Amino acid sequence: MNGAESLIAAAVSCGIEVCLANPGTTELPLVNAMDSVPGLRGILCLHENVATGAADGYARMAGKPAMCLLHTGPGLANGLTNLHNARRANSPIVNVIGEHASWHRDTDPLLASNIAHLAGWASHHVATCTSPEHIAIDMAGAVNAAWQSGGQIATLIFPHDFQLAPVETTSSVALEATKNTFSPERVGAAAKALKASKTALLLGGEGLSKTGLRLAGRTAAATNSELICDTFFSRMERGVDAPAVRKLPYFPDEALALTGQYERVIIVGTRRPVAFFGYPGMPSFMTSDEQTVLLTGADEDTLGALQALVDELDAPDEIRSSSGGVPDRQTGKLDATTLSLTIARLQPDNAIMMDEALTVGIPYFEASGCAPNFSHLMLTGGAIGQGPSSATGAAIACPDRKVINFQSDGCGAYSVQALWTQARENLDVLTIIANNQSYNILNVEMQRAGLQEPGPIARSMAGLDNPGLEWAKIGEGMGVPSVRVDNVADLEKAIERTLAEKGPRLIEAVMS
Amino acid sequence: MNGAESLIAAAVSCGIEVCLANPGTTELPLVNAMDSVPGLRGILCLHENVATGAADGYARMAGKPAMCLLHTGPGLANGLTNLHNARRANSPIVNVIGEHASWHRDTDPLLASNIAHLAGWASHHVATCTSPEHIAIDMAGAVNAAWQSGGQIATLIFPHDFQLAPVETTSSVALEATKNTFSPERVGAAAKALKASKTALLLGGEGLSKTGLRLAGRTAAATNSELICDTFFSRMERGVDAPAVRKLPYFPDEALALTGQYERVIIVGTRRPVAFFGYPGMPSFMTSDEQTVLLTGADEDTLGALQALVDELDAPDEIRSSSGGVPDRQTGKLDATTLSLTIARLQPDNAIMMDEALTVGIPYFEASGCAPNFSHLMLTGGAIGQGPSSATGAAIACPDRKVINFQSDGCGAYSVQALWTQARENLDVLTIIANNQSYNILNVEMQRAGLQEPGPIARSMAGLDNPGLEWAKIGEGMGVPSVRVDNVADLEKAIERTLAEKGPRLIEAVMS
Repeated sequence: MNGAESLIAAAVSCGIEVCLANPGTTELPLVNAMDSVPGLRGILCLHENVATGAADGYARMAGKPAMCLLHTGPGLANGLTNLHNARRANSPIVNVIGEHASWHRDTDPLLASNIAHLAGWASHHVATCTSPEHIAIDMAGAVNAAWQSGGQIATLIFPHDFQLAPVETTSSVALEATKNTFSPERVGAAAKALKASKTALLLGGEGLSKTGLRLAGRTAAATNSELICDTFFSRMERGVDAPAVRKLPYFPDEALALTGQYERVIIVGTRRPVAFFGYPGMPSFMTSDEQTVLLTGADEDTLGALQALVDELDAPDEIRSSSGGVPDRQTGKLDATTLSLTIARLQPDNAIMMDEALTVGIPYFEASGCAPNFSHLMLTGGAIGQGPSSATGAAIACPDRKVINFQSDGCGAYSVQALWTQARENLDVLTIIANNQSYNILNVEMQRAGLQEPGPIARSMAGLDNPGLEWAKIGEGMGVPSVRVDNVADLEKAIERTLAEKGPRLIEAVMS
Repeated sequence: MNGAESLIAAAVSCGIEVCLANPGTTELPLVNAMDSVPGLRGILCLHENVATGAADGYARMAGKPAMCLLHTGPGLANGLTNLHNARRANSPIVNVIGEHASWHRDTDPLLASNIAHLAGWASHHVATCTSPEHIAIDMAGAVNAAWQSGGQIATLIFPHDFQLAPVETTSSVALEATKNTFSPERVGAAAKALKASKTALLLGGEGLSKTGLRLAGRTAAATNSELICDTFFSRMERGVDAPAVRKLPYFPDEALALTGQYERVIIVGTRRPVAFFGYPGMPSFMTSDEQTVLLTGADEDTLGALQALVDELDAPDEIRSSSGGVPDRQTGKLDATTLSLTIARLQPDNAIMMDEALTVGIPYFEASGCAPNFSHLMLTGGAIGQGPSSATGAAIACPDRKVINFQSDGCGAYSVQALWTQARENLDVLTIIANNQSYNILNVEMQRAGLQEPGPIARSMAGLDNPGLEWAKIGEGMGVPSVRVDNVADLEKAIERTLAEKGPRLIEAVMS
């Protein structure tokens, strides 16, 4: 057994099943070890941000980390933005980075860089293997780190010569048991607020799981309080059986208008809400100090705290569901409303929705409240281009569920390479591109900043219309059967047809 | 005038003409300032690595820095790998990164990260604006830093509230004069080696400019020595009027076989050669301590040193040119040889060749020695995916020259978004994709490691054939007229037709 095989064996024994990879020469022993040590499924990605974004989607749906195999510093650099998103989602991920041979590194070969420095930007745990005999322990340490604090990013740097070096078979490695806790005092304070004041529970993390939402819904029904979710959540179990939840709006004036309706806002499985950007004259926090009551952060035992809260309130097993039903059939042109409502109307039972539709997707959240039960994933860290990659990872985790990637064009253009991995692995992902030929959020921000008449350069920086991206061609070039539609009737037909099939498909929805 | 306008005015007064941008909300005041303060051409890129790679290609051809405008930490993260390549090319680049409003940053909004830490990975100079009144000085400092040491990466972080803040008109800013020097003692030592020993000059940086090559060629002809260039050079002036130069091979056994032919190797405008990767049993350096004679590094006055050397040797104004002539017409299937030789045979006078063809392009260097004069650019830092982006920047710098991007498929898949900017700006770039449906370098490395029979996972990690990328469709989807060919005759016709036209074109050359 060599060092590379020792690492793969350790990964498998720690429960890692999937390796999302874009390897180079410094990772070849690890690639070969995946053949000689069984148990790890290697999946090739044509860009490292696809690998890390897929690992995020996988973690959200599988509830466990995948391994990313990346090529030295630049390979890690290319995957950083989806690690940033994963960090904000509390998704566990283990990165293994090949490094130059230890005896060669100090000569500063062209591909060399300070990998540990780079990894520190988006990793909670960074380690460099200094002995092949120790790599199994190093790998177990990285996997353990990924499991801590509700989900972390761990990065392990592994020099090429140590991968090739023979190792004695080491003692077996295993995960440490981890157990988060909650504060009974905070449960008591939350119960008091719920009984005494007009209150909302602001939910994130485990608070948006099926169990968490049921407990929060019982709490809300028993106390006549309301549920709000984070603007950008990692995963939320939604649909007809879930309680009614309002989403915290993106813009601070709208968010403050919502939170201002309550005397107390109880933070559950997340943190006190912060405006996505700072706007002149607006506060940073979307709740006041006096309003804010912390039940649990993302790194605490939110389900335990919610159960204790339900027990303390003696809340019946009843919730208030969303009202309004499935949206009516739409007609005519494609805009944010008709596109969002048509998807919400047609999505099948048990779907996974990877939602990076941004401005186009705003109507979708409310429209989908009474859809068949589904898992709703969102962009979490604001680093755009996550959708196609995380949809890929979600489909790897859940091969029996249909994944829909409702995707804005500007964001999708960052990570078209994910489509190729979907084709290669025949993943059951339907990508619906909302093609409005713009970074529309910039137009909205310009209007909000009072710029009714931006100059020609400013206008051009938000416009993707010259030339327009032809997504159906790009999809076909990446190996995904693709179709272009420009009205609701054709969109409906395309969705119905592709949902009846298995495997990756792309619908380019050209908006008016 | 606000802070953003003050920065743009400073950039223009320091000679910056081009801004490669992928802005977001935190950069909108700077975007608007490009309209209100004239002199900076804003060019939108759909991925930050296109912006930074284009800035590198621009710097190599324009001889001056462009500005990259990137969106907070994740925007910089996406552009890092081409900054790594630019660092290895000694290309001057000035990055301006928008940051959250200074009063908002400490609340850790979702998009927040440690930008200065991240920038340090690939920047020589990192500064954060702490006062809007000082931003013009900060910007001049960044531009000055970019000009130092033969070309550097400078990164300036600019909070959103300081962009919006009013500033008094500041005193004008200007560049400090910079002047590199050389060592007369080292010139004397080099002359002595040239007279006494069988010697080669290993050229990089300014040694590969038109002037540098002429002086080095005169030196070689006068002393019966030979010229070698770096394996991966930033820019080399080549073709029928240039002296004969051999390229240092990529693999260390082959590189050592070449350098072993000489008693002395004089390093000119570059550094002592280091193997790209460390291989067991091979040294890191490709010259021995005894062989190595340093004339100048990349941060010294190489042209001055070469002129002094020519003077000391009293070398006549004569050089030895490449022999062999333009390649013969090829026939049959497309392979590395027929593809490389056909491009070398047909390339027009005064072309710019951005060469990221890797294994497919190996025959190209020798084949193009007698081509019409051209500028040859290569991938410099090993972070693949530079070609389409740097070709874009070269075309921005030199609108009257034809740019050819000879591009491997595996590398090109990293940065397909560059094609869109070529279409949008109607840049005169002909992209020729060598489609061998593999990361072929990995196959070569596996064979060299003695793995004649890699396992199925290892084989799959080098194969891009399932599904094959259809580059002509991807090109069309990005707005570039594209054609697919699979034999030499059709390739010739396609090259001849596209060279006669202006504007971006793509030829997908499917190899057998």
